[in-house]
Parts: sequence; C-alpha cells; structure tokens
Amino acid sequence: MFHQSDINFNILRERAFNLRWASVPSDVIPLTAADPDFPCAPEIAEAIAKYASSRYFSYAPAEGYSFFKEAMANWQNEHRQVPAQAAYLYPVDTAAFGIYNVCKAFLSQNDEAIIFDPVDFLFKYSIETCGAKAISFSVPLNPETAFDYDVLEHLITPNTKMLCLCNPLNPTGKVFTKQELEIIGAIAVKYGLIILSDEIWSDIVFTPHQYTSIAALDEAIRRQTIIVTGFSKSYALAGLRIGAVIAFGEQHYQLLIQASNHQSTIHGSNVFGQVAAATALNDCGYWLSAFITHLQKVRNICVNGLNAIEGFSCFMPHGCYLAFANISNTGLNSSAMHELLLNKAKVAVVPGLPKWFGAGAEGHIRLSFATSEEIVTEAIERISNTMSKSI
Amino acid sequence: MFHQSDINFNILRERAFNLRWASVPSDVIPLTAADPDFPCAPEIAEAIAKYASSRYFSYAPAEGYSFFKEAMANWQNEHRQVPAQAAYLYPVDTAAFGIYNVCKAFLSQNDEAIIFDPVDFLFKYSIETCGAKAISFSVPLNPETAFDYDVLEHLITPNTKMLCLCNPLNPTGKVFTKQELEIIGAIAVKYGLIILSDEIWSDIVFTPHQYTSIAALDEAIRRQTIIVTGFSKSYALAGLRIGAVIAFGEQHYQLLIQASNHQSTIHGSNVFGQVAAATALNDCGYWLSAFITHLQKVRNICVNGLNAIEGFSCFMPHGCYLAFANISNTGLNSSAMHELLLNKAKVAVVPGLPKWFGAGAEGHIRLSFATSEEIVTEAIERISNTMSKSI
Repeated sequence: MFHQSDINFNILRERAFNLRWASVPSDVIPLTAADPDFPCAPEIAEAIAKYASSRYFSYAPAEGYSFFKEAMANWQNEHRQVPAQAAYLYPVDTAAFGIYNVCKAFLSQNDEAIIFDPVDFLFKYSIETCGAKAISFSVPLNPETAFDYDVLEHLITPNTKMLCLCNPLNPTGKVFTKQELEIIGAIAVKYGLIILSDEIWSDIVFTPHQYTSIAALDEAIRRQTIIVTGFSKSYALAGLRIGAVIAFGEQHYQLLIQASNHQSTIHGSNVFGQVAAATALNDCGYWLSAFITHLQKVRNICVNGLNAIEGFSCFMPHGCYLAFANISNTGLNSSAMHELLLNKAKVAVVPGLPKWFGAGAEGHIRLSFATSEEIVTEAIERISNTMSKSI
Repeated sequence: MFHQSDINFNILRERAFNLRWASVPSDVIPLTAADPDFPCAPEIAEAIAKYASSRYFSYAPAEGYSFFKEAMANWQNEHRQVPAQAAYLYPVDTAAFGIYNVCKAFLSQNDEAIIFDPVDFLFKYSIETCGAKAISFSVPLNPETAFDYDVLEHLITPNTKMLCLCNPLNPTGKVFTKQELEIIGAIAVKYGLIILSDEIWSDIVFTPHQYTSIAALDEAIRRQTIIVTGFSKSYALAGLRIGAVIAFGEQHYQLLIQASNHQSTIHGSNVFGQVAAATALNDCGYWLSAFITHLQKVRNICVNGLNAIEGFSCFMPHGCYLAFANISNTGLNSSAMHELLLNKAKVAVVPGLPKWFGAGAEGHIRLSFATSEEIVTEAIERISNTMSKSI
C-alpha cells in the first residue's frame, strides 16, 4: 500500500495544495506540509460513495452525528485508555479550528497561555487572535532530552490560564514519556491551568516509543484537559476538514460548544468529514499500522541521509513524520537554505522561521517524509548533491 | 423528481437535523428549517463518488479550488449578469460563515449596520458578534409593498458602515424589484456603505417575479457590494457546508480573505462541498428549474390552505419556499401557536420570535414548504383541524 507505484502523482499535481505538488513547479519534490502522498484507505472512499448514493445531505446536528461521536469515544477508550464520552466530544472543521475553539473558550484579553518553542504556529496564532499572550517555554530539540519543568513552572503568573501541549511535538518529533506528562499534569493541577492537548500526531509514533495521552493519567489531570485531534496526519484526510474536540465534563463541554458557534450554524462539521473519520476509526486500523511501519523505514533513510550531508545534523524523531534538521553549520540561515534547496536541489522544505515554529526553530529546516522510499531517497540525494557543490 | 414517492423518509429520520425529521417525534411533520425533503440531483452524488474513487483528499487551496471559482464566476456572469471574477471570489464553510466573514472584514466596535426587520437572525448575530450594532429598519410584511427608503436613509449615521440586504427576503418572501434595488444602491453609494447582499434564496423566485442582483445594476453599486450565497436552499446541500463570498475588486477581496482565517487553515472550505457546488452550477440547472416549478405549485396549496384557516392570514411569497403566516387574530402569540401546533396538530413550525427574525416577526409563524404536495396538504389539514377545535 505504501510503494512508489501506489502514489498517483497526476492526482497529487491536481489536488495537493498548501505548498505541495499542486503548488510547486513540476520538477520540485515537496517535503513541506505534513500530508501523505499516498491515497487514503479504500474503506473511506467506499463509505463516502455509499453515503452519497442516497443523495441526502441534510443539516447535520450542530454537535455532530452520533455515529462520529460514538466512534471517537469508543476509540479513545479502547486505544488510549482515555474515558471519553460521546456526550462531551464533538467533530470540528479541522484540528486547527479545534485549537482556536479551545483558546476562544478559555482565554480572555491579557490572559497568558504557555507554549513550547519550537512548536507549530497554530497555538501562538490562536492565542493571540483571542487577545491573549503566548508565553514561550524554550525546549531542547533533542527528543531524548527531558525538559526542565522548573523553568516551565517559573513562567506561570496569576494571568496564566492554559498550557499548550503538542504530543508528539511538531517539529522536533519528541514523544513525551508518562513521567514527563505526570509532571506537566501536576503543574497544571497545582495552578488550575487548562491543558490544551494537541494530539493530532498521536498515532504517528515509532517503536520502541509509546504514546500516552495526558488525559489517560488520572482524573484530576483529565478534568483540566481538552484534547484536540484530527485526521489529516494519520489518515490523509486534510481536504475533508475534520477534527474533534474532546472535553471531560459538562462545564467544559458547554463552554466549548458555545465558543464554537456551532449552534448558530456559522461553524460546524461537514457530513463527509464525519463519515470518513468514523470509518477511519472503526475500520482502518490495519491501514494505519502498515503506514506507520512504512514511515519508520522511511524515517531512518531520511534522517540517516540528512546526517551524512556536511553541515547537517538531525535527531531521530520518536514521532511525527517530520525530520527537523539543524543546518546552522552550513553557514546559511533557514530562509537561505530553503531558497537554495528549492532553486538548486529542487526540493521544497519548510524553513525554521519564527512565524511557523517560534524563535527556537531558527537554523533548522523541516522535511515531511510521508511519501515513498524512492521519493525520499531522491530528495536526499538532490539535497546532498547541491550541498556538496555549494560548499 | 418531486413526488411523494421520491422522498426517502427513513433516511430523513436518520440524517435531517436542525429541527427536522431526525429531531422531532416520529408523528410530527417538520416544516421548520429551510431544507428540502427531496434527494439532491443525481449528478452531485455521482461527482462525489467519482472524486472519492481516487482516494486523494489532500489540502485544498486556502482560497478555493479553481474548478469551484470558475464555475461560480461563469454562473454569475451567465445567469445573473454579474461580472464576477474567479480571482475575487472564494468558497466558504456555509453562507452563514460568509455573512460572519463579511461582518468581520468591514465592521469594528461601535460601527453600525442596518438590517431589515424581520429578517433571518444571522445578520444581527454576526454584526453583534463583531462588536458592532445592528440597526433595525422595520419593513412591511406584504411582499407587494415597496419599502419607505426615506426611513431607511434616516437611520444612517456617521457610524453606519454596512447595509444588509437579504433578497429574496427571508421570512416574508419579498423579491426586490430593480427599481427598489436602484434606490438601495444609490443610498449605499451616497453614504459609502458596504452592501452585504445575501443571495442564498436568489434561485427560489416564482413567476412572474424575476430576480435581480444588486451587483448587476452598475459599477458604482457593485464596487460596494459583497455577495454571499450558498447551496443549501437551491440544491439541498446543507450538510456539505458550502457557500461563497463574491467581492468586486482586489481591495475588498484581500480584506475578506484576511478576515476569513483561510490562510491559517483555521477556517476553509471542504473539498466535497466544492465538488458538489461546482457540479450543481455546471450540470444541475434542469433539476433546479423542475424544483422551482414544483415549489410554485406547493406554495399555492400551502398559502391558500393557511388563508382558509380562521384567524390565519398569509401573503403569497414571491420568492423563498417559506410561508409567513400572521396568526395574531387567533389570540395566540407565536410561541403559544408553535406549542399548540407541535403538540396537537403534530406539525413543527418556526415561531416568529425576535431571536429568529427580529421584533417585526411577532404574531407570525414560518413554514417551509420544500416538500411534497401530500406532506404540505396533510400538514395544513392537521393545522386546520386543530385550529377549528381550539376556537
């Protein structure tokens, strides 16, 4: 399922935007937005066609179809040991909207929320869009290194309302250990902070590492946690715009639904997103397992290849299909490296700019390796050739 | 295509929420949310299945797929004599979001926007959510009666930034004449107001009335107009959450896209909404024509039936599949009438509450007649029987 021959490049060139195949010149390999090059599981396309065949696309329930809510609750209980309840979770128009929704529900003007640095831009963007302040906690880039949680605790002020956890951590690929999550959870409980747990990458974890949801730890931590997740990374459903927000208890749920604007119909979740996501959760575990096995192989090729390039160094990520390479020893900054690779190597990467990941990402580039062995090998070779010429 | 036998009530009871079949007791006929009881055109289901078959749902372009943008631009030019350009329009996650998006782009704290009263709640709700003030212009309920535009002009203050036009007007079914639109347009030009033209009902117009878009009148008016439209009313696609925002010129377009949050991916338009809507515009004109012909017949049955009930009176709507019946002579207010009809007649209607339509709707109920002749006949008979017993 995950061979070069399974990829339909013609369709990708028509459909894959957001800096990918349809957005770049035809001779460029895009390792940019984290979106697989492989088609989704066949069960998902079949479920969509079946649902469409009766030709009814009436108004969906504002809080989501019960088939979606139940699929997600069951999956969380079974696979994550998280006692999620269908009544307290709802589908959303992408995990990105889910993050924004949580910020809107819990943050007011001048409140503070702690984010890790580097991390995906959506936390900071959402916090600031709500008029609150994002306080950066600089973290080590080596996924092996435990964070200094004393430093984290010292960032907390009376205005701090929320702690944003991205686990696994985009872009470094760190998977938080149970022990680390217990420390983070204890801090949140001690200071009464909401834990916004962004779990969109939580399926993409490589052996021997294991994923723990912070909401699985204990009731006290769970009561302060809101999980946001999505289906773009694990199941290649970005275009369907489907995610979920999972609360634990009536009070948080009501705050979130009210902030979501679902009741007014201004926002909501489209029906095919819900159909596809429920099918993914119920029927496509086999596909996801095979995808992860493939990704682990490609990860090794990608990261080892990057480390063989002079001036590059890259930690082995524990999760996410992202290689976050330090390129500072090349003498180029991330923007210049991005330009060089795009124009000479014909490989598009994401530069480690503050606007994408925070200040801590400078000197790095991010490469998504959710593609075939051949494409990754070719991209690394192109980068290697370009770098050997330019040094 | 629009017979009783074409309706699949089993599917409606599973899928049609928002106060409709899946939300009401099984013995109740819902004439509530404006959402057809008929399945959509077969071409739409086929297009969805075909798109799904290749199993690629990658990130869509933030500003929409060009197949959607071009279909909408062509359709506006051809059917509305509106010189829309693909470059200045984009798909949105429902017309409801589109209205909110326009308010967010053009209204600041304490700005004022003029809305008609009665009108659908989304104008007022969106304006107030942006921190601005909705100023009500009380309008006659008879669709034949021209509005007093001198009164409208007197509502304009230095804080007025926008004029919200819903044409045809939900809930009264008024279709604005070209002459009226010229007056409204001239006022907007004179005071430099944005015209938010909600055209979601614009296909549903009954002979001999004809629809004119205010953006078709002249360049000066068009330059200040933003059209918002959708696909739920005309093509029964509510669950796909697809609408469009159409601007005229670069400056408005940039303001709107920035306010939309599409670039951050927090908001956006799902791919099947775009596929379905483009198919509707390109291939389903025949279906829409037949639907309107059917609706005109059902409208007459519905309105004549309501007028035959003691204490009820209902103008014949020129557009929208809505009957807006005055029930004040029954001695009941709209809430009490809603309760009586729900519990005794087993017909669900929308009460004319300020929260749904503004203060001008009191003493009225709204009935959606986008269903079969048999269902409407049965509903009117039930209402008639209940009213004859209760008087």
